[in-house]
Amino acid sequence: MKKNILIIPGDGIGQEVTTWGKKVLEKIGENYGHEFSFDEAIMGHTAIEATGNPLPDETLAKAKASDAILFGAIGHIKYDNDPSAKVRPEQGLLKIRKELGLYANLRPILLFDELLDASSLKPEILQGTDILFFRELTGDVYFGEKNRNEDNTFASDLMNYHRYEVERIARKAYEAARTRNKRLCSVDKANVLETSRLWREVVQELAKEYTDVETEHMFIDNAAMQLVKNPKKFDVVLTANLFGDILTDEASQIAGSMGMLASASVGDGTGFFEPIHGSAHDIAGQNKANPLASILSAALMLDISFGLQEEAKTVTNAVAETLKAGWRTGDIANSSTEASKILGTQEMGQKVLE
Amino acid sequence: MKKNILIIPGDGIGQEVTTWGKKVLEKIGENYGHEFSFDEAIMGHTAIEATGNPLPDETLAKAKASDAILFGAIGHIKYDNDPSAKVRPEQGLLKIRKELGLYANLRPILLFDELLDASSLKPEILQGTDILFFRELTGDVYFGEKNRNEDNTFASDLMNYHRYEVERIARKAYEAARTRNKRLCSVDKANVLETSRLWREVVQELAKEYTDVETEHMFIDNAAMQLVKNPKKFDVVLTANLFGDILTDEASQIAGSMGMLASASVGDGTGFFEPIHGSAHDIAGQNKANPLASILSAALMLDISFGLQEEAKTVTNAVAETLKAGWRTGDIANSSTEASKILGTQEMGQKVLE
Ligand SMILES: CC(C)[C@H](C(=O)O)[C@@H](O)C(=O)O
Ligand SMILES: CC(C)[C@H](C(=O)O)[C@@H](O)C(=O)O
Repeated sequence: MKKNILIIPGDGIGQEVTTWGKKVLEKIGENYGHEFSFDEAIMGHTAIEATGNPLPDETLAKAKASDAILFGAIGHIKYDNDPSAKVRPEQGLLKIRKELGLYANLRPILLFDELLDASSLKPEILQGTDILFFRELTGDVYFGEKNRNEDNTFASDLMNYHRYEVERIARKAYEAARTRNKRLCSVDKANVLETSRLWREVVQELAKEYTDVETEHMFIDNAAMQLVKNPKKFDVVLTANLFGDILTDEASQIAGSMGMLASASVGDGTGFFEPIHGSAHDIAGQNKANPLASILSAALMLDISFGLQEEAKTVTNAVAETLKAGWRTGDIANSSTEASKILGTQEMGQKVLE
Repeated sequence: MKKNILIIPGDGIGQEVTTWGKKVLEKIGENYGHEFSFDEAIMGHTAIEATGNPLPDETLAKAKASDAILFGAIGHIKYDNDPSAKVRPEQGLLKIRKELGLYANLRPILLFDELLDASSLKPEILQGTDILFFRELTGDVYFGEKNRNEDNTFASDLMNYHRYEVERIARKAYEAARTRNKRLCSVDKANVLETSRLWREVVQELAKEYTDVETEHMFIDNAAMQLVKNPKKFDVVLTANLFGDILTDEASQIAGSMGMLASASVGDGTGFFEPIHGSAHDIAGQNKANPLASILSAALMLDISFGLQEEAKTVTNAVAETLKAGWRTGDIANSSTEASKILGTQEMGQKVLE
C-alpha cells in the first residue's frame, strides 16, 4: 500500500509526540511492506510566528492532497492570557476541521488493565469500561456567528445545528454501535436548548431505523455525572461539538491520563488523527510528554483511514506490552511505580518501537 | 425573627423531599423562637397539569412576596421524550430565576467524611475537598434568543453575556473567596467563544482589585477533567450558566451522591433554595429519595437569607451526626452498609429531626 501522510506537529509538546507517532508509522511501513511517504507542515502558534496565519494556505493545500494527517497539539498561553487577540492558534485547528469536512470526531476510551491504578476512579468502577465517543466537530457554537459590540459590553456566539449535520454523525454513531454492544446514548440539553431539541428529534427518527440498537437520551449534566458514577453503562456516546469537548476530556480520567487518548476526525475526505491532550507548554521540550496518545493516533490512522486492522492491532499491542512491562511516563505513574521504570518521551517511544 | 417561607415542591420527588426541608425549618423555628410561616405553591409539570402554565401568576406573586423559597425539583419524562412540546416544565424554573433576578447560584460541594466511601472516586483523591461553585444563573445560552426554521431543518440558541452580568457574579465569587482559601478559578472556553473572551476580560479586570485572591483561568474541558483528577485543587469556582450546570452535576460525585447537594440562588431579592438533583420520576412516591439535599437547602436558607449561622450549623451537624450513626438512604449506601441501616425518605428525615 502507498500512502502520503502529512505530519502537523503544531505547538508545545506537539513536536515531541508526533515524532514518535511518525516513527511507529515508518516501522509499520517497513515491517509490512507499505510505502508511507511523509511530509510536514505548520499550524497554530508556530504558524502565526512564521507567517502571521494560524493555517497557512500551503498547509491547507498539503492537507487536502494527503491521504491522512497526524497532528500534535495546538495553543499557547500567550493567547490564553490575552482574550482580545484577533489572530489565535486555535483558529488554525477549527479552520482545518471545517475545510476538510471533518464532522465526526471519534474518541475511543481505551482502558489498559495496567493503568487501572493510574485513575482517580476506583478500579472496580473502571473495570470493563469501553466507550466510543462520537463528537460532532464542524458545527455548534464553535462555528456560529460571533459578535462583540463596539463598547465591549456585550458578546455572543450562535449555537446552531442543521438537521443534516446531526443526521450524518448520528448515522456514523449508529453504524459503529451495530459493530459493538448495540447501545447508543445521545447527550443533549433538550430541556433548555432548541438546538438540542432538534438534535433529539433527529436521533429519535434514526432510532426507528436502527431498531437493533438500544437508544437512550441523556441530559449533558446527568451525563457528566454518570460518566464518573458508572462509566461502564456507556457504549457509544453521540453528542454535539461543545458537549463532546467537555465529556471526552472528563472521560480521559477513566483511561488514567489525557496522555493516553487518541482521536480520529473523519468526514468527507482526508482523515485527521490527533491526541486529545493539549499543547502543555509547561512541559514542552523537557522530554516529559507521554507519546502514547500520538502513537495510538497513528494506530487509529492505520485502522480507519487505511483499513489496516492488523497493523493497527500490532501498534496497540506494542503499547499494551510496554505498559505490561511496567514502563510509565510521569503522567501515568503512581506511588507504587518504581522510579527506574519512569521514562521520558523518547525512551517511552523507543520501548514501544522495540 | 419573623419570616415568610414559600415551599414549591415542584415535580417528581420534589414533594417528598421538601416535606423534610420544611419540617426541619419548623423545628428550628420552635427551638430558637423564630416565627416561620409557610405557604405553598405549584410549578413545573404539576402546574401545567393544573393550570396549563408552568409558572402560574399566583406562584410568582407569592414568590415575590416571600422572604425565601424552598424548592423541590422540576421536570417530567413526558416532555423529555417530546422535543416538540411548546410548553415545558423547565420553563417555570427558568422564568422564576429570571423574574426574581437570581443571578448567582451557589453550590457548595460539602464532603461528609462518612460518605468518602460512597463516591466512585478514591478516598485519598477526595479527602480535604471543599469547593464552592458560583454558577451564573440568569444569562448565557439558557436565555438567549431561540430559533427554529419553518421546515424544521435548523435550530439555534444565542449564547451571550453582558459585561455587567459577568461582573456582578464575579464580585460575589471574589467576596466569598476572601472568606475562604483565597483562590478563585474562573472557567470558560476563551480559546473558542467570544462570550468566554468577554467573561475572561471582566474577571481579569476584577482580579486587579482582588489582589489578595489568587485568580486562575481554566478552560471548561480541562476543568471537567481536573475535577475528577484532583478536586482538592479548587476553592471557589466561578463559571457561566451552562458550564456551571455541567460541572456541578459532575462534582456531585465528589459528595458521594446528587442526593446530598444543596444550592442557593440569590440576587436582587428573595433567595431560592433547592437541591441540585432532578425530579427522579423513576423513584417518586416510593419513599426512596434522599431528603438530605432538601434539608441542607433549608440550612443554606437559614445561613444566607436569614443570617442565622448558628441555626444553619445545627442543621448541618444534625445531618453529619445522622450519617455518623450509620444511617443511609439507598443512593449513599455501599456494599459495606448494613441492610438495617438503609432508610427511606421519611425515616431518614425523622432521624435528622431527632
Ligand atoms: C484546542 C481547542 C480548540 C479544541 C476544541 O475545543 O475542540 C480542543 O480542546 C479539542 O478538544 O480538540
Ligand atoms: C432543570 C434544568 C432546567 C436545570 C438547569 O439546567 O439549570 C437543572 O439542571 C439545574 O441545574 O438546576
